[in-house]
Amino acid sequence: MHILVVNGPNLNLLGRREPEIYGTQTLADIDNELTKTFPDVRFTFFQSNHEGAIIDTLQSAMDRTYNGVVLNPGAFTHYSYAVRDAVAALPVPVIEVHLSNIHLRAESAAGEEFRRLSVIAPVCKAQVSGFGPAGYVLAVRMLLNATTETQ
Amino acid sequence: MHILVVNGPNLNLLGRREPEIYGTQTLADIDNELTKTFPDVRFTFFQSNHEGAIIDTLQSAMDRTYNGVVLNPGAFTHYSYAVRDAVAALPVPVIEVHLSNIHLRAESAAGEEFRRLSVIAPVCKAQVSGFGPAGYVLAVRMLLNATTETQ
Amino acid sequence: MHILVVNGPNLNLLGRREPEIYGTQTLADIDNELTKTFPDVRFTFFQSNHEGAIIDTLQSAMDRTYNGVVLNPGAFTHYSYAVRDAVAALPVPVIEVHLSNIHLRAESAAGEEFRRLSVIAPVCKAQVSGFGPAGYVLAVRMLLNATTETQ
Amino acid sequence: MHILVVNGPNLNLLGRREPEIYGTQTLADIDNELTKTFPDVRFTFFQSNHEGAIIDTLQSAMDRTYNGVVLNPGAFTHYSYAVRDAVAALPVPVIEVHLSNIHLRAESAAGEEFRRLSVIAPVCKAQVSGFGPAGYVLAVRMLLNATTETQ
Amino acid sequence: MHILVVNGPNLNLLGRREPEIYGTQTLADIDNELTKTFPDVRFTFFQSNHEGAIIDTLQSAMDRTYNGVVLNPGAFTHYSYAVRDAVAALPVPVIEVHLSNIHLRAESAAGEEFRRLSVIAPVCKAQVSGFGPAGYVLAVRMLLNATTETQ
Amino acid sequence: MHILVVNGPNLNLLGRREPEIYGTQTLADIDNELTKTFPDVRFTFFQSNHEGAIIDTLQSAMDRTYNGVVLNPGAFTHYSYAVRDAVAALPVPVIEVHLSNIHLRAESAAGEEFRRLSVIAPVCKAQVSGFGPAGYVLAVRMLLNATTETQ
Amino acid sequence: MHILVVNGPNLNLLGRREPEIYGTQTLADIDNELTKTFPDVRFTFFQSNHEGAIIDTLQSAMDRTYNGVVLNPGAFTHYSYAVRDAVAALPVPVIEVHLSNIHLRAESAAGEEFRRLSVIAPVCKAQVSGFGPAGYVLAVRMLLNATTETQ
Amino acid sequence: MHILVVNGPNLNLLGRREPEIYGTQTLADIDNELTKTFPDVRFTFFQSNHEGAIIDTLQSAMDRTYNGVVLNPGAFTHYSYAVRDAVAALPVPVIEVHLSNIHLRAESAAGEEFRRLSVIAPVCKAQVSGFGPAGYVLAVRMLLNATTETQ
Amino acid sequence: MHILVVNGPNLNLLGRREPEIYGTQTLADIDNELTKTFPDVRFTFFQSNHEGAIIDTLQSAMDRTYNGVVLNPGAFTHYSYAVRDAVAALPVPVIEVHLSNIHLRAESAAGEEFRRLSVIAPVCKAQVSGFGPAGYVLAVRMLLNATTETQ
Amino acid sequence: MHILVVNGPNLNLLGRREPEIYGTQTLADIDNELTKTFPDVRFTFFQSNHEGAIIDTLQSAMDRTYNGVVLNPGAFTHYSYAVRDAVAALPVPVIEVHLSNIHLRAESAAGEEFRRLSVIAPVCKAQVSGFGPAGYVLAVRMLLNATTETQ
Amino acid sequence: MHILVVNGPNLNLLGRREPEIYGTQTLADIDNELTKTFPDVRFTFFQSNHEGAIIDTLQSAMDRTYNGVVLNPGAFTHYSYAVRDAVAALPVPVIEVHLSNIHLRAESAAGEEFRRLSVIAPVCKAQVSGFGPAGYVLAVRMLLNATTETQ
Amino acid sequence: MHILVVNGPNLNLLGRREPEIYGTQTLADIDNELTKTFPDVRFTFFQSNHEGAIIDTLQSAMDRTYNGVVLNPGAFTHYSYAVRDAVAALPVPVIEVHLSNIHLRAESAAGEEFRRLSVIAPVCKAQVSGFGPAGYVLAVRMLLNATTETQ
Repeated sequence: MHILVVNGPNLNLLGRREPEIYGTQTLADIDNELTKTFPDVRFTFFQSNHEGAIIDTLQSAMDRTYNGVVLNPGAFTHYSYAVRDAVAALPVPVIEVHLSNIHLRAESAAGEEFRRLSVIAPVCKAQVSGFGPAGYVLAVRMLLNATTETQ
Repeated sequence: MHILVVNGPNLNLLGRREPEIYGTQTLADIDNELTKTFPDVRFTFFQSNHEGAIIDTLQSAMDRTYNGVVLNPGAFTHYSYAVRDAVAALPVPVIEVHLSNIHLRAESAAGEEFRRLSVIAPVCKAQVSGFGPAGYVLAVRMLLNATTETQ
Repeated sequence: MHILVVNGPNLNLLGRREPEIYGTQTLADIDNELTKTFPDVRFTFFQSNHEGAIIDTLQSAMDRTYNGVVLNPGAFTHYSYAVRDAVAALPVPVIEVHLSNIHLRAESAAGEEFRRLSVIAPVCKAQVSGFGPAGYVLAVRMLLNATTETQ
Repeated sequence: MHILVVNGPNLNLLGRREPEIYGTQTLADIDNELTKTFPDVRFTFFQSNHEGAIIDTLQSAMDRTYNGVVLNPGAFTHYSYAVRDAVAALPVPVIEVHLSNIHLRAESAAGEEFRRLSVIAPVCKAQVSGFGPAGYVLAVRMLLNATTETQ
Repeated sequence: MHILVVNGPNLNLLGRREPEIYGTQTLADIDNELTKTFPDVRFTFFQSNHEGAIIDTLQSAMDRTYNGVVLNPGAFTHYSYAVRDAVAALPVPVIEVHLSNIHLRAESAAGEEFRRLSVIAPVCKAQVSGFGPAGYVLAVRMLLNATTETQ
Repeated sequence: MHILVVNGPNLNLLGRREPEIYGTQTLADIDNELTKTFPDVRFTFFQSNHEGAIIDTLQSAMDRTYNGVVLNPGAFTHYSYAVRDAVAALPVPVIEVHLSNIHLRAESAAGEEFRRLSVIAPVCKAQVSGFGPAGYVLAVRMLLNATTETQ
Repeated sequence: MHILVVNGPNLNLLGRREPEIYGTQTLADIDNELTKTFPDVRFTFFQSNHEGAIIDTLQSAMDRTYNGVVLNPGAFTHYSYAVRDAVAALPVPVIEVHLSNIHLRAESAAGEEFRRLSVIAPVCKAQVSGFGPAGYVLAVRMLLNATTETQ
Repeated sequence: MHILVVNGPNLNLLGRREPEIYGTQTLADIDNELTKTFPDVRFTFFQSNHEGAIIDTLQSAMDRTYNGVVLNPGAFTHYSYAVRDAVAALPVPVIEVHLSNIHLRAESAAGEEFRRLSVIAPVCKAQVSGFGPAGYVLAVRMLLNATTETQ
Repeated sequence: MHILVVNGPNLNLLGRREPEIYGTQTLADIDNELTKTFPDVRFTFFQSNHEGAIIDTLQSAMDRTYNGVVLNPGAFTHYSYAVRDAVAALPVPVIEVHLSNIHLRAESAAGEEFRRLSVIAPVCKAQVSGFGPAGYVLAVRMLLNATTETQ
Repeated sequence: MHILVVNGPNLNLLGRREPEIYGTQTLADIDNELTKTFPDVRFTFFQSNHEGAIIDTLQSAMDRTYNGVVLNPGAFTHYSYAVRDAVAALPVPVIEVHLSNIHLRAESAAGEEFRRLSVIAPVCKAQVSGFGPAGYVLAVRMLLNATTETQ
Repeated sequence: MHILVVNGPNLNLLGRREPEIYGTQTLADIDNELTKTFPDVRFTFFQSNHEGAIIDTLQSAMDRTYNGVVLNPGAFTHYSYAVRDAVAALPVPVIEVHLSNIHLRAESAAGEEFRRLSVIAPVCKAQVSGFGPAGYVLAVRMLLNATTETQ
Repeated sequence: MHILVVNGPNLNLLGRREPEIYGTQTLADIDNELTKTFPDVRFTFFQSNHEGAIIDTLQSAMDRTYNGVVLNPGAFTHYSYAVRDAVAALPVPVIEVHLSNIHLRAESAAGEEFRRLSVIAPVCKAQVSGFGPAGYVLAVRMLLNATTETQ
């Protein structure tokens, strides 16, 4: 069992940036929690601020060396049709994860309407939003089930 | 620990209606799975095709007799500001669950654009979409964590 | 042969409300005309101002105890995705009927733009609009043909 | 009793074009069915791919030589304000007929959003949509009733 | 003199829900204030979370047993064309009341754009918005004047 | 107690312009009615067709020489962000008054869609619309209450 | 001096169609009035319900055999980019004429929003709208001036 | 015979501002031309950059001291609902004049989309656009005809 | 090998109309170039300003007497759903050709936004745009390949 | 060197109105700072709540008695096409200044979407936004540079 | 003769990804076909998933070391204004190539509306879409012609 | 004092690309001018066509090693929510600089509507637009003031 966990732009700042929205856990904390929670799963963790690097990495899952992908696209969620196409090409299931409730933020005081739309969600298998770091755990659990089911 | 599980219109048809989208499990199957998976949790299950009945039921959680709510609003997701207001008034966390990937359906062959928008999501704590019946399990797990955290 | 005739909110006022638009016939008059015109058909007539009751009733046609449904959704036409989902789930044909020409009303002096769109029409088999009470007769005739064809 | 039946562009291909949507009956079949079903009615049938020819023909009904018009405007439905003006000028009732459910097609896999709107419907007396060739029969029946009523 | 006072969904929570917006008075307090302020008026008070029940109740005013209606549609304000149709059918004046300034809320931090539009207002005689519980008193006073005038 | 009553463009025509919408009372009649109804209140009345003059006058209430403002912005309602800013800057409550039901007019035969939106309402304390001249009386009564409450 | 006067679809009905909007003068009356008012001008009059025939006729003015064109495009005003292109190609000035005030009709009781936009106006030299038959006289007078100026 | 000619903001710059659009004639030139062309008509000329002054002036025509109004609203064309209301209140016909083709400018290189819409046109009797200074002459001629007709 | 080349409205003006956009070659020049470049192909050339004539001609390709169609719809590109339906009905491939870059023109100084959208492109096999007359040659070459491939 | 500094509606309230947005400096403070910072420049300062007065003043710069204009249009920024036209007519450079970041305010908690758009900016030479009173200093410095350059 | 061929994100997957849309040829196959078809042309082939790398490469054509560019921007087509700016800066012609008919895909079952718009097309010389790999050959042929013409 | 100056895609072409819009100064010229104008400030200059590289660089300012950032995002201005998030995370002020007046370009002949909106501006402290290279100098001066103020 091998799962690819991909994080998009500015998620390397987790724990340091707007903690009232994103919490105080760092990305390393999340990676550790996943490793600890699923000792039988092999994880490859990847974060980049470069759209191209994220696409390159997603493409590395083309040959089923991975059983599934957990993807938090960060701000690419809202405009990167190139990441979308890379996800659509994958033969393994991809779960989209957002730490905060993006629907809430679209309507909240910051008025960030653009956060309502995910151009990537339609080609993912499922999404979780608003669960904080626990969202990654749920996504992996889901992938484990999906893999078991189809065996 | 007491959790309210509310299902909206037409979800009583689960297992009989468009199984290629919603699968073959019935709502009773899902209820049973929850009961079995969380033996220490007391569940109250409610389904109705009546918007008013759903609001009445949600209001019954005003006095913290419940620790949290799992809500699949069905088609009310897309227009019931009344259900939204009932959710917004609750002092306990509400998790929105959708069986299918509503983003995919909004773009898919059926062209059901209206399924893209949830008027209820902005007042929920979190959402899961596309996990099928497992989404209910994830939502309950989330509520257990949330309750533990804040104790 | 058994046909379900469902009328939505405020149609119980027929004959009393805005007669210049809806005419002077009451809903009972229409029911009688159907019974008289089709003596060999068994009719079940239902009217409600409650969206949930209409969905409950439509669901009663899930098991083919009815050969078809004639539905005038009233104002639910324009926003009830819950009624739409109930229609979509039915294994028997549903004909949407509107007494007045809803396209005309959308543009007419009252400026009721919202009347132009039916969120239910796309999941019906056919629509008639603007025929007044005769629209119900045409819809039943259509269902008789459809039933005969597929036998 | 004299009725004008007007069919717009590409309806001469009926029975040959996309039979899964439009069926296998030709326009001549429909004409014959009308003649046979209403032996006491005199029909004038007209089909053209030319917008101007359709307007010329509709104008021929200005002097009440016809008792009513059955109009399937084909694709002109969606943009010909000139046909609309010709219909609006007529002193006899016009019924708009569509073979397929245009609301369904607007949302279906073909994504033909433009099929949702009829610019002609607001000036017609009534519409039928989705009844296939039987729609013409229903429209004529309607015109017979209307004529009788106002006598 | 007999006035019907109808309150829509979640208004039974008044005094308990978001008091910074809606104040601490309960609906019973408002009813009492009306009774005390207008000792010569007979009031019928009705609240429901059920759209159908509200329509049923409004229809009970069809026969002029009431001299006027005060209506706070709650969230139905923003989408219930069925309540609108019921109001439009009434022969007595209806005054729309909102406790808070809905225009302010549409623009405020909560970003609840949907609160800007009332689909019911165009068929009411008048509206008051932002006066808190006093809005009900103003509405009744208005109805008394209107009744006197037309006598 | 001192209240400023400000009326915008064309309201000086009251009683002479479109009486079927605005009634036959003149602005002087309304002023007199206010003076008579509230003998203990000192009123300053102001009407102008000049946006700048209205802003100058509103600014004169910056120093709390007034206890509140009653404002009928006339057509400025729909576009004057400058009047809006002047209102927003005032430390005393402002009540927006419209003689006719602006929601009705937006949908009515005149098709004056622009009348639906008030750019000033979001910075007022409350609005009354559709009460005719009585709206001014209600607004003053409201200001008296507000002033009493906060003492 | 030679001027081409082109009238679009349904203008041959002038005097017979909706006289409350278009008046009782026929197109022949207008032609006569032009001939009588401008005895020194040679006129070619053309009316057709066929878009192609109108384009053919407009193209006949490519070689400056005409000094200018008066064009009432009828309903083609609102969608015929083909007529627009024909106008744009002409080396002589074209004046667009509308009998009724199209801006008024766009907002009036008929709610014909589509009448607000002319896709042809941007390539014409000038427009007159709402002057009735006199609009043609004004347009010709304008062309005479323009021709004189540039000599 | 007495006609009021009203010009809006920046039209006092005529002849000095962007002559390639507006020509080299000044407003005084136009006034002189009108006086010379119509020796039997008494003219009152008014120009202002102040919206309020224009409304005051238009209102001076309330008592039929004028037989008609020629109005070039300048940039107020596109947003002044206050000027619109003043025009709507007048008992005499108002003709809207624009020197340049506003439809062309909406699409031209300057991309001034806002110039396409006139909020005042729907309440005027007629419009001329694109005729340059001659548009004023045409408008006066039109008013003379209208006055003659109704006598 | 037999190919139908259809050109829409105003393309007969090629070489005479706006040569800075469309070049100086006439349609006859293009026809000759095709005949010379593909000596083994039999061509039928058709141009018309009549939408109906273009549909009639396209329908003549229903019986595979042609191997493919090259279509430059001219301005019909932007609104003729009737031509679209005719193309959709053809059993042979259709290539859409535009002389100029329609995307550039949509944004360019002329501001012809409407040129951005082709309502016909979605039912064609392929498009070339901006190649000038060479676009026709490319389209024919493409059809030859397609025919060869499927043999 | 002579510079005109024009401030629009409500800017006379500077230092008194919403100091958390606009700071505590008054307009007089800003004027003094400009005079002190640029001792060699002659300044004319003008503020008005009257759109017409601002246009009159801007027009006074038509004859190059000024070398440039610094303009803070206040709320006129968002709708005054009349001020825009006055700016467009000026032969000297105009710099638009906003004290606060209008882009931020458009998205912030106040939800003042309308503040995003400046209808005047496209005809100015440049803008500064968000610099507070220092924006005026920057604008003057810019004008000095521009003047030097072009000498 | 030297031509740069640039392919955007995910085009390296060609032949492996969604072959029913994109066919079974790889990008290397296309490169080989170009080299073989045009033996006298020197090609530089570049593919990247990195927007920045594509811009860097396009900028390398600033000094006319290339005679032209063939560009398939992949998903960057729909949002990369940065690639657009790089194309706009080039002194040599750029041809945009799409393998599939993007207009068809925008309307087809996948509902990928976003594929309709190319933000890059307006700054290219020409586009081909829907020709599959042959589109590259056509684009190169076009560039050869263009180069020959301008010599 | 240490300031980071970041320039986005294609700004390395400055002085070579469209000099009529961007002038003839190169980016190096601007850097030199900054260094010369502010001898006491330490500058770090960065330009990249890679969105990811720009985000990486902006993140290097997380630890206050810089006192402020001057950012010209180039085309990223219009769509890069990822750059926006990076800016939002910074604890030091960021000033957005555009060489040309982006508001003018949105409306100008090139019709580049997309240039009107900056998705980054709402999270910057201030913007300057249209000042050419001098904009960078103004931005730095602003940062110096801000730093001094808060000490």
